[in-house]
Amino acid sequence: MNGSVDVGAPTGDVPRRSAKWLARRDEIIDVSAPVFAQRGYHATGITELCAANGLGKGALYHYIGSKEELLAGIHDRVMDEVMAGADRVADKGGTAPVQLTNLGDELLDVIARYPDHVWVFLHEFPALTGERADQFRVRRREYERRVEAVLQLGIDDGDFRAVDPKLTARAWLGMHNYTYLWLKASGPLSARDVAKPFADIFIRGIGT
Amino acid sequence: MNGSVDVGAPTGDVPRRSAKWLARRDEIIDVSAPVFAQRGYHATGITELCAANGLGKGALYHYIGSKEELLAGIHDRVMDEVMAGADRVADKGGTAPVQLTNLGDELLDVIARYPDHVWVFLHEFPALTGERADQFRVRRREYERRVEAVLQLGIDDGDFRAVDPKLTARAWLGMHNYTYLWLKASGPLSARDVAKPFADIFIRGIGT
Repeated sequence: MNGSVDVGAPTGDVPRRSAKWLARRDEIIDVSAPVFAQRGYHATGITELCAANGLGKGALYHYIGSKEELLAGIHDRVMDEVMAGADRVADKGGTAPVQLTNLGDELLDVIARYPDHVWVFLHEFPALTGERADQFRVRRREYERRVEAVLQLGIDDGDFRAVDPKLTARAWLGMHNYTYLWLKASGPLSARDVAKPFADIFIRGIGT
Repeated sequence: MNGSVDVGAPTGDVPRRSAKWLARRDEIIDVSAPVFAQRGYHATGITELCAANGLGKGALYHYIGSKEELLAGIHDRVMDEVMAGADRVADKGGTAPVQLTNLGDELLDVIARYPDHVWVFLHEFPALTGERADQFRVRRREYERRVEAVLQLGIDDGDFRAVDPKLTARAWLGMHNYTYLWLKASGPLSARDVAKPFADIFIRGIGT
């Protein structure tokens, strides 16, 4: 069991389970994300997921339910971290420029730590169906709204000019999310190395 | 034959062919891009590509050579347009802020007109192998260098502060490329509606 496992985090529609079960499930999610990232979601069979996790089919299904649920689990794992970061930013408070800087720090930190999860999350979301697809959209929109709220705060406080918060949030998200193609925790640039100049560009760019 | 077919455009390692052959090949590329975007590259078989194009296997192979060559063709089709846009910007000249604005206009115009091609291009590039993978990297890097050159010009002229051109080009590319998730020629916002506020943010953001 590794230290980064979020035993207490919400895990979507998964029924109430023991902390041990949840931790094992998170481990399976983390081992499976690079397999999907490498081979693609549709091309990856349950047999390969079993092999990667060192589990039989029955044991794997006991934790993940279905391949699609595993995909949703990868998404939730990233979004739990992203939303926890946004909560920390809101709790800390401060001016809109400070909060936007902190949001960037938190987001790039998640992208750098979970490159495979984010790859899968951004590329394979069309494979989610029904309620899982709805939940995916709701959670993404929820995060966008956090960014828009910080932008609106800055406009109201006179720190930011009267930009369109929705379009500007998309610009900000694009600039940050797109780093998934090259930002890695093991790479030459840390999340912080990137977050600082990105915040400088963005905050000057919308500043009054 | 539709009017947007680039008969004279470079088409990678394709041998010299008639204008008619090239135009038909471009048509096949344009019809196949949404099929790959919808089903994924690996999950799409030659049979589905034949059905979508109304061609038998022999005829399809006559134009595309292989499924991987078709994927490379989709990439080249977008990159030909992106590079043609960058050439127009360079030919027109002007200050670095003007050139960066024009680059954004051109890039978002391509993204809005080719949403399926760009989707395939950004998601399926790891399926390219050997020389095709190399060419993909070379062409992407070539475009990044154009953006970096405009940033460097602005720094040299004193229009932009002393940002890191490479990292700043990545910020700019992320902000613009990421619009592929929501920008469509048929959508509520035109490429120009988005390019203008994006340029405002970015140019103020790196301005002196």
